[in-house]
Order: sequence, then C-alpha cells, then structure tokens
Amino acid sequence: MTTAGVIGWGLIGGSMAKAIKKAGHTVYGYNRTTSVIGRALSEGVADAYLTKENAADCDFLIVALMPDVTVSLIRQFAPYLKKGCIVVDCTGIKSAINIALSGELARQGLFFVGGHPMAGKEVAGYENSEAELFANASMILCRDGFTDEEAYGKAEAFFRGIGFPRIKETTPEEHDRVIAYTSQMAHVVSNAYIKNSVLPERYGFSAGSFKDLTRVAKLDENMWTDLFFANREALLSRIEEFMGHMEEYRKALSERDEDRMRELLREGRILKENDEENEKAAFEKMSGS
Amino acid sequence: MTTAGVIGWGLIGGSMAKAIKKAGHTVYGYNRTTSVIGRALSEGVADAYLTKENAADCDFLIVALMPDVTVSLIRQFAPYLKKGCIVVDCTGIKSAINIALSGELARQGLFFVGGHPMAGKEVAGYENSEAELFANASMILCRDGFTDEEAYGKAEAFFRGIGFPRIKETTPEEHDRVIAYTSQMAHVVSNAYIKNSVLPERYGFSAGSFKDLTRVAKLDENMWTDLFFANREALLSRIEEFMGHMEEYRKALSERDEDRMRELLREGRILKENDEENEKAAFEKMSGS
Repeated sequence: MTTAGVIGWGLIGGSMAKAIKKAGHTVYGYNRTTSVIGRALSEGVADAYLTKENAADCDFLIVALMPDVTVSLIRQFAPYLKKGCIVVDCTGIKSAINIALSGELARQGLFFVGGHPMAGKEVAGYENSEAELFANASMILCRDGFTDEEAYGKAEAFFRGIGFPRIKETTPEEHDRVIAYTSQMAHVVSNAYIKNSVLPERYGFSAGSFKDLTRVAKLDENMWTDLFFANREALLSRIEEFMGHMEEYRKALSERDEDRMRELLREGRILKENDEENEKAAFEKMSGS
Repeated sequence: MTTAGVIGWGLIGGSMAKAIKKAGHTVYGYNRTTSVIGRALSEGVADAYLTKENAADCDFLIVALMPDVTVSLIRQFAPYLKKGCIVVDCTGIKSAINIALSGELARQGLFFVGGHPMAGKEVAGYENSEAELFANASMILCRDGFTDEEAYGKAEAFFRGIGFPRIKETTPEEHDRVIAYTSQMAHVVSNAYIKNSVLPERYGFSAGSFKDLTRVAKLDENMWTDLFFANREALLSRIEEFMGHMEEYRKALSERDEDRMRELLREGRILKENDEENEKAAFEKMSGS
C-alpha cells in the first residue's frame, strides 16, 4: 500500500489527489485553507489531514504550489518524512527548484524528483479538479546530479500508475528552455495579440484562428510573472527569436516581396507538418514503460 | 422557388451548395474540374451544370474562388444573368473585389453584395464540404455606394435561410481592416511561432497552448500570400501594432521589471475577459432578423 501526501489542493493538486485515490492509494492532504481538505475527506478523496505527526507514513510527497511556497513547505515537512520518501513538485519551472532542493533533500536521506504535469484548465481550484485531468497528458520528470535511480524508477511507475499515458524524462535545464517556448511564450504572444486597436470592431469577423491565438490571454498575471522571472533568460531568448521571425514577414510585406512571403509561409507550413509527424513518433517512445 | 448558381466547388463552395440544397432551393454548379459537378449531381447536391444557356434562371450567383478568378468568372457569366440577379462572392478580402465589381455589375442591372462566410477547416476540397459548416458561423455582407437595399435584404434573408445564425453587416473597408487582425495576422503569427530553434525538443513539453498558437501554421502559402498582398497595408499596420506590444513584454523581461510585466499581463487579461462579454452582446444583435 502506497501512501502519498499531497500539499496544495488547487486544480493540479486536487486532480493529483483524485488520480492517486482512484489508483487505490492512501492520500493525506495539506492545504493552507483547511476546509478544502475537510471537503476532500467527506468526498473520500483524502484519508487524513497531512500533519507532522503522520508525515512519516508517506512514500511520496506531491507538492502543487507556486515555486517559492513549494520550497518553503517542502523544507517545513522534510524533517518529519521517513528516509527514502520521494518528493515531487509540480511547478512550471525546474532549474531553480532543483538547485534549491535536490542536494538538500538528498543529504536528509530523501529523494527529490522535479515534476511538471502537462495539463491545465482555464479554471482553477479544487472544485474544478478531476481524476481524469491527466488522461492525455505527459508527466515531466527531471534528473540531475543527485538523482537516485531507484527512486526515479519508482516515481515513473507511480505516475504511470495513476494515469499519465506518457512520462517525459528530462533535465531541469532542458525543461526550462523548452517550456519557455511551448508554454510561457504562448502566454506572452496571446496576451499581446489581444491588444490591438481594431479589437472593439472584431465581432462577427472572427472564426477559429482568432479564438485560438487569444485563448490563453486570460491568465493569472501574478503566477505567470513569477514563472517568467524564474526563467527569465530562456523566455527572453525565445521571444527574441520569435520577434526576429515576425520581422521577416513584416519586411516582406513592407517591401512588397510576394515571393519572399510565399517562401516564409512555406517554411512554416512544412515545419508544422513535420512537427505533427515527429510528435506521433516521440509519443510512441514516451508511452513505453 | 429560388435558383442559385454556385461557382467554385471547393470546401466553401461545396458547403454553400449543400446548405442551399438542404434549404430546398435549386442548385446549378460550375467548376473548372467538371467531374466535381458530376459527383454533386449524382449525390443530389447539384440539379444541373451551370452554363451560359441556363445562367438566366439564377436568382443568386455564389462564387467561392480566389479573388482574381472570382472577378474574371463573374465577368464571364454577367452577360448571361437575368436583371436583378444577386451576385455574392466569398473571398477573404473585400475592398479590391467591391471596387472591381460593384459599379460594373450595377450598370448591367445586376446586384453585387460582397460576402465572406466566417468558417473553414484545415482540410480543403468538395470531399470535405458539409451543409453544417456554417451552423455556428457569421456571414459577412458588405454595403457600398452601389448597394441596392432590396437586394441586400434578400441576400441577408437567403443566408439566414440556408443556416447562418448571424449576419454581420459591414463595409469593404471595415472588413479588410478587421480581417487583417482576426484572421490574416493569426496566420502570420502562428507560422512565425513554429519557427524556433527549440522546436525539435518540444515533444512531451506541450499542452494546449502550443497547439493553439501553431494550429493555423499549416496553411496554403499561395492562397495566403495572395490574400495578404490584396490587403497589404491593413495587415502591415496590424503586425506593426502587435510587434510594438511584443516589444513591451520583451523590454520588461530584459530590464527585470516585474511590476511592468504584471501590469502588461493584467491589461491583456482584462481585455480578453471584456472581449468575451462584448462578443456575447454583439452576437445577440447579429442574430436578430
């Protein structure tokens, strides 16, 4: 029987808890607003409040909070965990977290594995959490110089077991470089896209493309500012590269160079077509155990 | 009984034909590759080939082709149409088309109404067309100095009758200014987004936001280059405005100005929230008859 402590019962933590419970494990819950755990207990999602007294029962400690609170709460609970407990965070940046915790926990006989479940919703909170949130998502797990192979293997098996169809193995550095592109920059571009002087005229003139480009403009500015600045250089590089490409299209239009525009669009179209094929192949590899 | 001639049986023309037929009207079809009309006849979507001999039966002539071919084919058929026939195109730019055709057709006793159905798919061709393509789409109809009020009213009723839930009344100039933002720029941004040096590393690191931002990168570079250059100045203005906003986020990151970043994101978030409310209100108006 595996026991998992879950800290931070918002959308991600709540969904983790529900998925863990559904897989038949025992769940202990800790949340700043304790009434959420009360509700989870009454719903049968949590088996007990997670406390300093029972923290030693946990085989896994899963933390789903903002980066700074993640570090401080893990530090608070660490002295009460049993040796060999595997601690996994869920924040959207990994280098800073790994640097803060990986060696420190190893010295205490604990195992840290940086994690990032690639799923979300436009609505937050435990009330929107669901066991199936990760049914089509990758779970990213990071290795660094302190990684214990046995613990890493156990973490991988645990997340496959609670329903993740794919595990993406990476390093904190690779994670942060790529996530700046696939997620953080998407939020910047979308948020910038909505700011245009013709926005008030757009009704009746939009189909799917406008909707897609602006969907994630609706974001939590506090959370995303923190994430952006915890990954500032990587995000800056990706944005500068994107702006360089935008400038090529602008120049082709400005200089009335139709051939150049056609070539620019063709390059992008081919990249997108190949990208879809490449993703299929990559997903097949990640699905194996 | 209304008879409609449909010229250009790709995704849009084919879907128009199917929606018109479903509404109980008679459909004549013309397509460069005549076998498509043969198939439509056998499927009961077309009632006859559209020819110079029977063109005078048509109450409406709907053309769904690229801008230049649209103009030349309408000119070819115009002498054979009966007085009062309402001619509607479906191209993604309107000023150039209206300037070319509106006065010219009026002098021949015909009525031109520039149109743009706001629907599409990532797949093209008659084989992908469907009567329901417009079930949640706006039909944009343009007025200009040559517009005949009675004919415009008939066109509006006709498109509501074949299934468009909303008619967006506009001018060619407004259409082109707004469509540069809602559709054309979305294709540029998406096509530029996919071009990034970390693209080959992205598998397992993406959730919905990357997918949304890059969906329309897969485009027909010939068609879009033509549309962009038929609306060059409007698109250039929108792109330059967008790049100016992107520069603000870049600068906030570069200058380590977290407060400024938070404020930029907050502005976008609020615009997006209001935009959703505004769209609901605007749609209610467009749904009235």
